[in-house]
Amino acid sequence: MKRSSLYDIILTVAAGGLEIFERTARWRQEDIVAMCKRLLRLKGEAAAISLAHQILVTYKGLSPRNRLQFFERLRTEFMPDAERLNQAIAEYQRDPNPDNVRILALAAESPRQDLFRLLNMGPDGTPSIVAMREDLRELLAANPHLRAVDGDLLHLLQSWFNRGFLQLERISWKTPAFILEKLIAYESVHEIRDWDDLHRRLADDRRCFAFFHPALPDEPLIFVEVALTKGLASSIQEVLSAPIPASDFQFKPDTAIFYSINNCQPGLAGVSFGDFLIKQVTDSLAEEIPSLRQYATLSPIPGFRKWLDEQLSATASTINFS
Amino acid sequence: MKRSSLYDIILTVAAGGLEIFERTARWRQEDIVAMCKRLLRLKGEAAAISLAHQILVTYKGLSPRNRLQFFERLRTEFMPDAERLNQAIAEYQRDPNPDNVRILALAAESPRQDLFRLLNMGPDGTPSIVAMREDLRELLAANPHLRAVDGDLLHLLQSWFNRGFLQLERISWKTPAFILEKLIAYESVHEIRDWDDLHRRLADDRRCFAFFHPALPDEPLIFVEVALTKGLASSIQEVLSAPIPASDFQFKPDTAIFYSINNCQPGLAGVSFGDFLIKQVTDSLAEEIPSLRQYATLSPIPGFRKWLDEQLSATASTINFS
Amino acid sequence: MKRSSLYDIILTVAAGGLEIFERTARWRQEDIVAMCKRLLRLKGEAAAISLAHQILVTYKGLSPRNRLQFFERLRTEFMPDAERLNQAIAEYQRDPNPDNVRILALAAESPRQDLFRLLNMGPDGTPSIVAMREDLRELLAANPHLRAVDGDLLHLLQSWFNRGFLQLERISWKTPAFILEKLIAYESVHEIRDWDDLHRRLADDRRCFAFFHPALPDEPLIFVEVALTKGLASSIQEVLSAPIPASDFQFKPDTAIFYSINNCQPGLAGVSFGDFLIKQVTDSLAEEIPSLRQYATLSPIPGFRKWLDEQLSATASTINFS
Amino acid sequence: MKRSSLYDIILTVAAGGLEIFERTARWRQEDIVAMCKRLLRLKGEAAAISLAHQILVTYKGLSPRNRLQFFERLRTEFMPDAERLNQAIAEYQRDPNPDNVRILALAAESPRQDLFRLLNMGPDGTPSIVAMREDLRELLAANPHLRAVDGDLLHLLQSWFNRGFLQLERISWKTPAFILEKLIAYESVHEIRDWDDLHRRLADDRRCFAFFHPALPDEPLIFVEVALTKGLASSIQEVLSAPIPASDFQFKPDTAIFYSINNCQPGLAGVSFGDFLIKQVTDSLAEEIPSLRQYATLSPIPGFRKWLDEQLSATASTINFS
Repeated sequence: MKRSSLYDIILTVAAGGLEIFERTARWRQEDIVAMCKRLLRLKGEAAAISLAHQILVTYKGLSPRNRLQFFERLRTEFMPDAERLNQAIAEYQRDPNPDNVRILALAAESPRQDLFRLLNMGPDGTPSIVAMREDLRELLAANPHLRAVDGDLLHLLQSWFNRGFLQLERISWKTPAFILEKLIAYESVHEIRDWDDLHRRLADDRRCFAFFHPALPDEPLIFVEVALTKGLASSIQEVLSAPIPASDFQFKPDTAIFYSINNCQPGLAGVSFGDFLIKQVTDSLAEEIPSLRQYATLSPIPGFRKWLDEQLSATASTINFS
Repeated sequence: MKRSSLYDIILTVAAGGLEIFERTARWRQEDIVAMCKRLLRLKGEAAAISLAHQILVTYKGLSPRNRLQFFERLRTEFMPDAERLNQAIAEYQRDPNPDNVRILALAAESPRQDLFRLLNMGPDGTPSIVAMREDLRELLAANPHLRAVDGDLLHLLQSWFNRGFLQLERISWKTPAFILEKLIAYESVHEIRDWDDLHRRLADDRRCFAFFHPALPDEPLIFVEVALTKGLASSIQEVLSAPIPASDFQFKPDTAIFYSINNCQPGLAGVSFGDFLIKQVTDSLAEEIPSLRQYATLSPIPGFRKWLDEQLSATASTINFS
Repeated sequence: MKRSSLYDIILTVAAGGLEIFERTARWRQEDIVAMCKRLLRLKGEAAAISLAHQILVTYKGLSPRNRLQFFERLRTEFMPDAERLNQAIAEYQRDPNPDNVRILALAAESPRQDLFRLLNMGPDGTPSIVAMREDLRELLAANPHLRAVDGDLLHLLQSWFNRGFLQLERISWKTPAFILEKLIAYESVHEIRDWDDLHRRLADDRRCFAFFHPALPDEPLIFVEVALTKGLASSIQEVLSAPIPASDFQFKPDTAIFYSINNCQPGLAGVSFGDFLIKQVTDSLAEEIPSLRQYATLSPIPGFRKWLDEQLSATASTINFS
Repeated sequence: MKRSSLYDIILTVAAGGLEIFERTARWRQEDIVAMCKRLLRLKGEAAAISLAHQILVTYKGLSPRNRLQFFERLRTEFMPDAERLNQAIAEYQRDPNPDNVRILALAAESPRQDLFRLLNMGPDGTPSIVAMREDLRELLAANPHLRAVDGDLLHLLQSWFNRGFLQLERISWKTPAFILEKLIAYESVHEIRDWDDLHRRLADDRRCFAFFHPALPDEPLIFVEVALTKGLASSIQEVLSAPIPASDFQFKPDTAIFYSINNCQPGLAGVSFGDFLIKQVTDSLAEEIPSLRQYATLSPIPGFRKWLDEQLSATASTINFS
């Protein structure tokens, strides 16, 4: 098998990821939408991986104004083939059987969905797409017509961040600092003042759990904080200000107070994590601490409290009963 | 939220998953299709997880005849809402703008897609769905009308087994035996006779790589076998029968011969892995072994050889060489 | 095989270690020195493990006054057998051949050495012995005659913490918080003010490495802090107060400034780690960062600076050559 | 500290250890015993690491005849300082107090012990020393005077392979093949015929456990094989030939039959592992399988059977049972 000596090495695999040398001339002249259309033509070919990566790198370099233009063009220039769609509609109207329904559904699917799937193939594809949706969502209020693009992204992310792919992990003082730092940043229900405050929330009479996804291993998606107590505290302040129990103090908590839950990824807004997190955490606590008798919420924010109560009730109806 | 202390905990989290005690009465009387419809109504509620698991357990217990019936009913009883679809068609025909296209696509999507996504949420969801599709594909020849169901499953699996979620792993003599055992089982190009034969294929002058997916950590999806040689061998037999080089023999291979590639999961037929695997393996070899000058195939099976040559050529155009 | 029903379950293996139920009656009455003597008689028997553990637990419960008594008795009551030793001396004096030397050395060895080796067998044996020596060293100034006991402990710890058993690990912002917390506590050359200060010391233009031992996995033994710079800084303050480089700033440092090194375990005083750490870190940096041209120290503490310079010079003479 | 930019870095840290380029001239002329004496003078200096490694590499290249000579000279040329020893004897005889005993013990210790400790510092030090002792033990029958050297090595290895540093690991079909291969090689009580035979011994109704040491991570030190049964089998053949239970067969074994135990490292002969392994395995089984009621041995080899019975009885006295 001969190889032209004109070929340049473009991709090299470094220890922790792909280092991509810029293939400059052509790409510099080609706009990002043209690159996306070319990607759709490549489909499953191996060359698609580096093109996908190049598109995401190019996107990151776009100005806010150019990003808006990019989303506008994603909305209007990635329409399904009209002739094929009209024919599928006609066939469906002639005979609405399962096969014709399926042909119609395929014909109506926007090529944007395919585009996003192809973009995901490169290194850091998933975090880049989540970040792209975060940008898009900031534009939605002023540009509500972009909801079609956002809807496609959400549809895909809901499928990829399916509960079956999430991993529950306990967050503790043994967790790497760069993860803990994110807890401080994302906690918005009861602010974490500093590392001492954080350390207290991870003490032996506290629990913190988060969902992670294999394609975003460094990013908690959502986390919940729980206090283990004897009896129900009268206020959240009482919980937050309680001293750390002595290390050799053996206590048998009977109550788990869910006092805070926070989503961490604005780019995953609309993907439901909270219900599943609370269910799995109650399961996990029941397993670990047989002395628990009640699960409760304590929160000054009525809406949050109500939702949390509902989750705990819903969970109760599935896990506990004589 | 109070809980009676009479309640016993039914669900417990075991080391590797949920152990679900059967909640018998209702489920025994309810057929699997009714359970599926109930699951669609639960959607993102936490209770959906145990129902999803129960459906997959029930499915595994079905006779071949009942499985066929189940797939038949998946085809006909999970149609999109006709009224909503017809209205979406009318709106689209009135004004084929991006929003109306999107509304049409959503209205035409079969609830089966949602059903499979919900089934995935339980423990072992993904492997169970892959196994279910393997069953389905065995029925297709005699029941071609089930292709609509198979198409929906394939559509979903292509999205979930996106290249961006796959992990390349080197297979060596340090790999756990239960993984190696699967290589012996799945190798169909050049049979692996026994463990000695396998050991030889994993020696220092050989490479074996596989793709894995986080939701199927114990299952290679596809693997490729490569021989590193000085110069191109004249036949595959020469490669397979070459003695193991001495452990202190320093050799600088200039040729990588891709002599076998095998898909391992019949339930993932149609999801493309081979192109990406070959691309990433050539990248990885070029990085690890700078002395490599040519990548070649040697196979007695013309079709396989042609495809492999094409992959290597396509890859060459992105990675190579002076 | 019959078992007496009088026996109680004493040892159970929990997920992360042995949970030991107290075998109260006999041990409560037996003093710790008697337990040590009994342990020496058990030697390699399996029962020795739980007795060793019980002794270490008992030791931890001793008052400072009782600890002093314990060390006093370790000094005087664990003498080698006088008759055997005198006979070995006589044989050696008659014929000082290698065999008689060896018999003499064995006869002169204090049973304390054996005792400490046996104590190490139980769960948490090594950290408990290191902690015991820390206690002992605090008593030495006022009780210099205890140096014989300290010398035996040091002899053993030097053998166990041999360079060949140490593991070099990079400390970064990805390191678990409970390890990082110890850096803040142990840094005595240039105080780490808070977590922000620590984070700056672990930025991309800094390196921190520590030695760990498999039997103390949660405890750094010694750590060194290095700043990577372009050219030699004029003062340590300039290094400590330098701003964090931008994340995309590509810089090629030519200088590695070793600005702090700290031992963490007072119980391992006298076991030499610093020379080896500096050697391995310079090796590691030379491998990772080929642009490095000089290794330097900057420290206001003359003694520390002199020692560090000597280490770097010594290292240079082994790793660099024309 | 300035460095000429002409210097090239010779030592580089490879992923798994130091790769040492030969510093040829001096070493080629220097014999291995002279190198050992130089190593003793270097002691804790960083340069000792590469010299230690060079000595072990040189040793591996020695012919059997030269190895014998090396051990002979280790015996005679590494004597303690006679004057210092005689003075210590005199002091001890004048006043046999604890301090004088300790001074005597130190004075009588052969520098060989120090030498072996220094040799351990380099990469692969521990496995090389274990291999060296394996060589030595093969020479002992014909050269019984080398027992003094062997005794020093054993003394050191007993200290390093202290129970407190060993890690119990379950061996299963998930264990890497290159470890399993060693089980086949080392099993001498009941030969493992092939991989199928091995697989059967690692099935759900069997247990296999081994001790590992952190400095020999790829080498089991000793392993034990256990069959879980209902009631005591009448013969070992009945156990070995029993069919694999069906994967969904739920059985509650009441008997654990220890049918084989094997030491793997001839270089560690005399270091006691068996008692501790059996103790920890019975603890671990009692924890994992609460239905176990008796532990038994079944072996055609009377000596082995007797020893195993004693171990189980000794263990029983610490772990058991109503």
